[in-house]
Amino acid sequence: MKSTLIKEIFRNSENFSGKEIKISGWIRTSRSSKSFGFIELNDGSFFKNIQVVVEEDSLENFKEITKLPISTAVSVEGILELTPESKQPFEIKAKNIVVEGISSSEYPLQKKRHSFQFLRTIAHLRPRSNTFSAVFRVRSLAAYAIHKFFQERNFIYVNTPIITGSDCEGAGEMFRITTMDLNNVPKDDKGNVNYSEDFFNKEVNLTVSGQLSAEAYALAFRNVYTFGPTFRAEDSNTTRHAAEFWMIEPEMAFAELKDYMDTAEAMIKYVIKYVRENAPEEMEFFNKFVDKELFNRLNNVANSEFGRITYTEAVDILKKSGEKFEYDVEWGIDLQTEHERYLTEKVFKKPLFVTDYPKDIKAFYMRMNDDNKTVAAADLLVPGIGEIIGGSQREERLDILEKRMEEVGLNKEDYWWYLELRKYGSTKHAGYGLGFERLIMYLTGMGNIRDVIPFPRTPGSAEF
Amino acid sequence: MKSTLIKEIFRNSENFSGKEIKISGWIRTSRSSKSFGFIELNDGSFFKNIQVVVEEDSLENFKEITKLPISTAVSVEGILELTPESKQPFEIKAKNIVVEGISSSEYPLQKKRHSFQFLRTIAHLRPRSNTFSAVFRVRSLAAYAIHKFFQERNFIYVNTPIITGSDCEGAGEMFRITTMDLNNVPKDDKGNVNYSEDFFNKEVNLTVSGQLSAEAYALAFRNVYTFGPTFRAEDSNTTRHAAEFWMIEPEMAFAELKDYMDTAEAMIKYVIKYVRENAPEEMEFFNKFVDKELFNRLNNVANSEFGRITYTEAVDILKKSGEKFEYDVEWGIDLQTEHERYLTEKVFKKPLFVTDYPKDIKAFYMRMNDDNKTVAAADLLVPGIGEIIGGSQREERLDILEKRMEEVGLNKEDYWWYLELRKYGSTKHAGYGLGFERLIMYLTGMGNIRDVIPFPRTPGSAEF
Repeated sequence: MKSTLIKEIFRNSENFSGKEIKISGWIRTSRSSKSFGFIELNDGSFFKNIQVVVEEDSLENFKEITKLPISTAVSVEGILELTPESKQPFEIKAKNIVVEGISSSEYPLQKKRHSFQFLRTIAHLRPRSNTFSAVFRVRSLAAYAIHKFFQERNFIYVNTPIITGSDCEGAGEMFRITTMDLNNVPKDDKGNVNYSEDFFNKEVNLTVSGQLSAEAYALAFRNVYTFGPTFRAEDSNTTRHAAEFWMIEPEMAFAELKDYMDTAEAMIKYVIKYVRENAPEEMEFFNKFVDKELFNRLNNVANSEFGRITYTEAVDILKKSGEKFEYDVEWGIDLQTEHERYLTEKVFKKPLFVTDYPKDIKAFYMRMNDDNKTVAAADLLVPGIGEIIGGSQREERLDILEKRMEEVGLNKEDYWWYLELRKYGSTKHAGYGLGFERLIMYLTGMGNIRDVIPFPRTPGSAEF
Repeated sequence: MKSTLIKEIFRNSENFSGKEIKISGWIRTSRSSKSFGFIELNDGSFFKNIQVVVEEDSLENFKEITKLPISTAVSVEGILELTPESKQPFEIKAKNIVVEGISSSEYPLQKKRHSFQFLRTIAHLRPRSNTFSAVFRVRSLAAYAIHKFFQERNFIYVNTPIITGSDCEGAGEMFRITTMDLNNVPKDDKGNVNYSEDFFNKEVNLTVSGQLSAEAYALAFRNVYTFGPTFRAEDSNTTRHAAEFWMIEPEMAFAELKDYMDTAEAMIKYVIKYVRENAPEEMEFFNKFVDKELFNRLNNVANSEFGRITYTEAVDILKKSGEKFEYDVEWGIDLQTEHERYLTEKVFKKPLFVTDYPKDIKAFYMRMNDDNKTVAAADLLVPGIGEIIGGSQREERLDILEKRMEEVGLNKEDYWWYLELRKYGSTKHAGYGLGFERLIMYLTGMGNIRDVIPFPRTPGSAEF
């Protein structure tokens, strides 16, 4: 008999009522008396366990079964019975249980509560716990929701390169990739590394952003998006930074700053809706046990029209607020998380786009405004986190772009193809970047980026 | 006025009939007489161009417009008129045309046919050509079809790490990742590289496969899949190998070899169906201009039950065939592409799983069969290509797995967590790997992997 996913049973229990079915999964808990007992079985397809009733009279290996350690893998055949008067909506009366793989009393995920810190040391097992099981199902659903959102709008998914010779931000700290023997690095006449002997015959790094490549594709397909891993070799051990993380970078031709903001707002609302509809049990759990403000916050996002103010207005509000900040506010500074959170949490009490930042604190490719002091950039700030999305209209005018690149000291030859996009049918275009893990933290209330990545990579840590 | 995607107009032209609309795109061709002309406009959302009629009487900048070079970006406002008697189903009578960004006569993608080789040197512009526009729309749809297939079946999408300290195949040629100064690599007392000074305090590489991590997740979620970039530092310049490519790696717990084959067969059929339904124009184009056998081949796949034979049977057939092969066939050899293609094209004339290979030519993690000579592995061979999927049931028995690792000389300590999966509720499980670019080549008939990757990475080449 083929075994049925526990999710399918929970979603359509009426269909299975009174029928013989087979399920397979891992024992979460087990309790028994002399002649009968209960096993809570979970197969990872669903948040909740299914209750299996075992009775000495109907089960040959009753004694063996009731002594099995937690996390043992079993397959159960039995009859599903609806139990409308009990806590659980149904149970399975076992007729036959096969032990697929026994666990041991040394299994490190015993019933007691473990700290997230401890669970990181067993990242291969932690998805079997309630919390991480929920986190990674939600992560999967959110990823799909993002694809669905863009595909329904005819955006083309583009896989921009991971190995790259260019540095999008002009400033990122990057990982070098090489096949050279590090014990004996080939050198040239002058004693410098001879990259002509490396795999790609030149210096290459792990990408920090797919944006520049995505722009090339937006200028062919109009609307595109990337969704892939990006890397930062920053030596910062915070709860919000990882060396390897996934980014979504939509890019739209014939689009202005407003179009990016409209799309990003619709996308965030779409993903929240999708996840709440498709993982209601997990979301309830997060709201109850991880972050009691979660539903309030998500409801607020879903039902608000996001605020929009300029950076100049934001600085004004902050200066007049009378609030004591760790970092002083002056026009020209980069807003700190404390400022961002004050604006979105205290002043606007909803998600907020701050637009038109001073050019000197933003990247070279952002479109210069007519004031020649600010650029058409916008960051989305959300209560509880601060910045979650950054984006801009891109500089489509060749002369202005070249001038900006000179100002910030970039070598135009390295960007020959990016500049050519401005020669052959350039047009206004805009895009943004969303850190996928930040989104998952936001959707679940989880406070540490290490706890929303299956096997996180941070300074000094690349285990598993 | 908001501009409408050209795809939306083609799919619902009746709705737009007689209405004023705005479209934005790039000029593909343009021809005119003194007082009127035609512009073929494409916005990348759809394979076909839209025909814009320009008339001196109704267009202020008629003269300017008719002289615009190819690839100029314009926005057109006008009335859509159905033209049931013409070649094209409708046209737009322009009332107003705005030049968004002018192109130049130096635009390298002029109307004449270019070789794929030349187009690779302008990878930032080639998606504007018919062929590549079609390839990358199909790539996007195929990616989505894969997500859709697995999500509909409650598989959990898992992002396995790109930066890894382990080497899944135990033999892959890998790219090293480092933040150390290559001009001055830190050494220890013995003169060896001192990795404790590197970012992760140890040697790390780019992943060659997410499988081992996926197994950990399958043993928590039952059914999971990865879909992400993988890397091989192989110095092989062929039409089928790239240093960076995307892989799909499903992994299923409580599953045997047969379950992998059933799932893979259903997945391939699903993706073909999805792409043909959602990109009929592109697929017609490939069948007509890229590979005249394409539809025959895809129909054959869609309508066949895939064949299944053992390696031993396959060797037997090949030896008895009387066919002259470059490489001789003996039980124990790894099948070459010529053998694989003979089997699937000449003997079976349809997709074919070859199962139960000699253990010595397969990876350590594949499940040992009772004969102690073969493993429960299966490769899917398809006409026109050869191997497109490789997979196996995994060795779930700790003692046998450890013995195999010793035989092939792997250090068990490096795999401590992988081995622990066999201690705490191990169960039979199976999975496979599909090279996404091979699939796209198969779906489109494109013959070179460099032409189905936006910005390909191959030995000596990491341009753009």
